[in-house]
Amino acid sequence: MIKLYTYFQSSASYRVRIALNLKNIPAEMIYVNLVKGEHRTVDYAAINPEMIVPTFIDDGKILSQSLAILEYLEETHPVPALLPSEPFARAYVRGLSYTISSDTAPITNLKVRKYIAGTLKQPENAVAEWMRYWMDVGLASFEKVLARSSHKGKFCYGDTPTMADCCLIPQIYNAHRWKCDISPYPLISGIAKECETHPAFIAAHPSKQKDAA
Amino acid sequence: MIKLYTYFQSSASYRVRIALNLKNIPAEMIYVNLVKGEHRTVDYAAINPEMIVPTFIDDGKILSQSLAILEYLEETHPVPALLPSEPFARAYVRGLSYTISSDTAPITNLKVRKYIAGTLKQPENAVAEWMRYWMDVGLASFEKVLARSSHKGKFCYGDTPTMADCCLIPQIYNAHRWKCDISPYPLISGIAKECETHPAFIAAHPSKQKDAA
Repeated sequence: MIKLYTYFQSSASYRVRIALNLKNIPAEMIYVNLVKGEHRTVDYAAINPEMIVPTFIDDGKILSQSLAILEYLEETHPVPALLPSEPFARAYVRGLSYTISSDTAPITNLKVRKYIAGTLKQPENAVAEWMRYWMDVGLASFEKVLARSSHKGKFCYGDTPTMADCCLIPQIYNAHRWKCDISPYPLISGIAKECETHPAFIAAHPSKQKDAA
Repeated sequence: MIKLYTYFQSSASYRVRIALNLKNIPAEMIYVNLVKGEHRTVDYAAINPEMIVPTFIDDGKILSQSLAILEYLEETHPVPALLPSEPFARAYVRGLSYTISSDTAPITNLKVRKYIAGTLKQPENAVAEWMRYWMDVGLASFEKVLARSSHKGKFCYGDTPTMADCCLIPQIYNAHRWKCDISPYPLISGIAKECETHPAFIAAHPSKQKDAA
């Protein structure tokens, strides 16, 4: 049985929950409350020395980093595929994924927010402005890349969900939380709407998790 | 002929230069000066709407995002391999790579630095402190993950370079630039020393690029 250490509002955990659902892989969820600092305990550090979520355990083998977990799921449970088959198309979908997972989410996570509010002594509105600014930069890039693709469809690449959708939807959840307006982005908005009715995405939503506050 | 739009001090460009050298793939280098804002021109946006480097072009097909480019090179030029063959090991190496490419580099890039100095009006020493703090968090995580691996060797995974080394070495270059001390990290320091004498890493070094200031 696969185990996933997760936090309902962590977008990296959310990505893996979507992928597990899309591939119909059962997993035991273990809840780690980031706001209470449960990821910084000695016990959790023994499981994941990076002290981040998610942590993924398959048959005793431990993996960290959501995109590495997604690639592992793709290689060990190839159907349904979350990447196209042709190398260039695969790299395109991975590139979209990293636009979120590398260029957007890490700049706007809880740790960074705390540093800006704490160490840099920035007021609440400056922190919120930071969040919206970087989310908007990331989503604007994502929309532009989508716009020139010849593989537009219901989802980021064609008419079935890929790794890119697993990354985009948690980012949109975060955008809503921080009142970052996604209406300037019609392609993203359309994909978000499509995913709202997809069972794998619905079940992975933060509000549906047992640890939802 | 492959074309790479690159900037000598961009760690994402540096990752791709290392991978091209390791795989002995010739490429035409096109220089984009980030400090002069050459990535924000209309002409460059037409090539890469994300307005970042590197941009990789193979037979007219355009890719953005360094790790997506590395995966593409791995799939199209599999020898020498930059990922192990077993899925868990592949995910482990990818996870190490993302600890740098997602969790460290994006928080410390030129754009973020400019926002902190400009919009947040932070003095030079606070910007330098920000850089060192996040680089140290990232390298400390990386060292801890390496420390518990049973595949330690000359490089991040065993005795041949992988994608993780392509990510680590540019990050160490950046750590040196910002006087972030890597001596607390013996495994990282050992790998860095090994790479200093490796021709593929030497030729990819920022100081060896034609656009080096």
